Amino acid sequence: MTSPLRIAIVGHGNLGRGVEAALLKTADAELVGIYTRRDPAAVTPVTPGARVRPLDALESDADGIDVAICCGGSRSDLPEQTPAIARFLPVVDSFDTHARIPEHFERVDAAARAGGNVALISAGWDPGLFSINRLYGEALLPDGDTYTFWGRGLSQGHSDAIRRVPGVAAGVQYTHPVPAAVDAVRSGARPTLTTREKHTRECFVVLEPGADGAAVREAIVTMPDYFADYDTTVTFVDADELARNHAGMPHGGFVIRAAETSAGTRQVVEYSLRLESNPELTAAVLVASARAVARLQARGETGAVTLLDVPPALLSPRSAADLRRDLL
Amino acid sequence: MTSPLRIAIVGHGNLGRGVEAALLKTADAELVGIYTRRDPAAVTPVTPGARVRPLDALESDADGIDVAICCGGSRSDLPEQTPAIARFLPVVDSFDTHARIPEHFERVDAAARAGGNVALISAGWDPGLFSINRLYGEALLPDGDTYTFWGRGLSQGHSDAIRRVPGVAAGVQYTHPVPAAVDAVRSGARPTLTTREKHTRECFVVLEPGADGAAVREAIVTMPDYFADYDTTVTFVDADELARNHAGMPHGGFVIRAAETSAGTRQVVEYSLRLESNPELTAAVLVASARAVARLQARGETGAVTLLDVPPALLSPRSAADLRRDLL
Repeated sequence: MTSPLRIAIVGHGNLGRGVEAALLKTADAELVGIYTRRDPAAVTPVTPGARVRPLDALESDADGIDVAICCGGSRSDLPEQTPAIARFLPVVDSFDTHARIPEHFERVDAAARAGGNVALISAGWDPGLFSINRLYGEALLPDGDTYTFWGRGLSQGHSDAIRRVPGVAAGVQYTHPVPAAVDAVRSGARPTLTTREKHTRECFVVLEPGADGAAVREAIVTMPDYFADYDTTVTFVDADELARNHAGMPHGGFVIRAAETSAGTRQVVEYSLRLESNPELTAAVLVASARAVARLQARGETGAVTLLDVPPALLSPRSAADLRRDLL
Repeated sequence: MTSPLRIAIVGHGNLGRGVEAALLKTADAELVGIYTRRDPAAVTPVTPGARVRPLDALESDADGIDVAICCGGSRSDLPEQTPAIARFLPVVDSFDTHARIPEHFERVDAAARAGGNVALISAGWDPGLFSINRLYGEALLPDGDTYTFWGRGLSQGHSDAIRRVPGVAAGVQYTHPVPAAVDAVRSGARPTLTTREKHTRECFVVLEPGADGAAVREAIVTMPDYFADYDTTVTFVDADELARNHAGMPHGGFVIRAAETSAGTRQVVEYSLRLESNPELTAAVLVASARAVARLQARGETGAVTLLDVPPALLSPRSAADLRRDLL
């Protein structure tokens, strides 16, 4: 690409700020605007001098934008915004409600085709990088099992669930893989593991004044869907400690494919992430995905795609010949 | 694909036998013939009832073949065979002389275009899966460093070098990553590491009768290019022990990308392989690559490609919709 890729960020939470950070490290792309539903004056960009505009202005600004990166939430923002934007711009999102990806894909695909645009959905690490590795694992090693472990990492959904418990003023939840389970999988033994055997959950909770700690603990560890199926620990801390030690958004995990290629011959493939910032890694994937989208668009393609459909080379700023020379 | 992919294996060493093993685990592909420069009667297939044919018959058999998998060596076989076959069949190889990949690509590309075929070169794990992960690492995380470690694994080239030393009757060489170096890289610290700091080399040697062990050891550890830049250990064993404990072809290694996405925020991505059979893993990649080649061919594409150019989904037997539903 000769001139920098012109990127619009839609939505300015943790993920939108992460995309700003990623663009600051990306030589072949530039931020042309942050689009928000809030009052633009209330948004403080990471990038010096960045332009903040009302979301309503995105369509009229479209001529100056190559790709929009949607940084909203999967629950209510992206199902509406990604298809709407795909009608007038190439777009990337990180839609991560796994069960609804087929439905989201269909809606975005129809809108993108109608608009003559490419739209890449569900970029990030899970879905995203982990999905790619699940695919390589099962495609290359058909006689095998795939295991995904998450953590150590802060789970936003589980932290939200804690905070809804009466008596809880604040709290965070970390997911941990169980070391014995990981070791068993890494050995190539292909164990069958229950939910409880794979992960534990660790909560740090600030109680409201006068709250009953025992009751709060019981409400958390027995909570269906979120905690009941796991071994969960609850540690009470004060607000200062929570702010001091638990303000980060670390995460990570690993995808392991354990397989046999002939009788008794074990092959184990592992992909792992250790992230000090979960949203900044997701943002990094979004920016590289925007590069690929611009190239697919330039080829005249239209419709929805995911990272499973993107040749790895299209994510890189370098030429195919350079990549062959230096990386193969 | 409705009917199975018809695969020809060209060359029947460890890699060709590995492709047979991989095909036995692949529902959507079948072996139609093993092609050899040797006397076909001297070849013993892994697959019951497999047809063995002279290499000269490959072109006349081409109508019954979808993809040829070239299983020869990179030094002299593949530079000649892959372009020759690309003139009349879609083809996959595992050409792994890193420095010569650009030149091999050009030659194969010209032949494949002339023949109207797709040719995928340098499939395997390094080059191949490791290359893909180097690409994702640097494309997603531009402010970072990529580290490749190999081992614990049997190095064919270094084992051959040992066996050329006067006084050596037989021997094998294992490459080991240095644990302290791996730990430093995994921490995200982005150390600068010398060759000696990254890997050690371990040799098991059977002496010829009357050979001088001290002289053999000295000849090995000071051998330029192969051992002089490494800390190398030499252990003398008898032929029985070599056969009993060192007959396998284990290998593996890892590609680590250590990066920052904003000031002080470390992100570490690691891809690792633990292989009980190096050739069987390479073979597994070749078979999935053959599937991708058949699909690119069906789209009307021609010319040389590598795994860096292949959308991950094309390696899988499953539909794009199934992959989105189950893997994203």
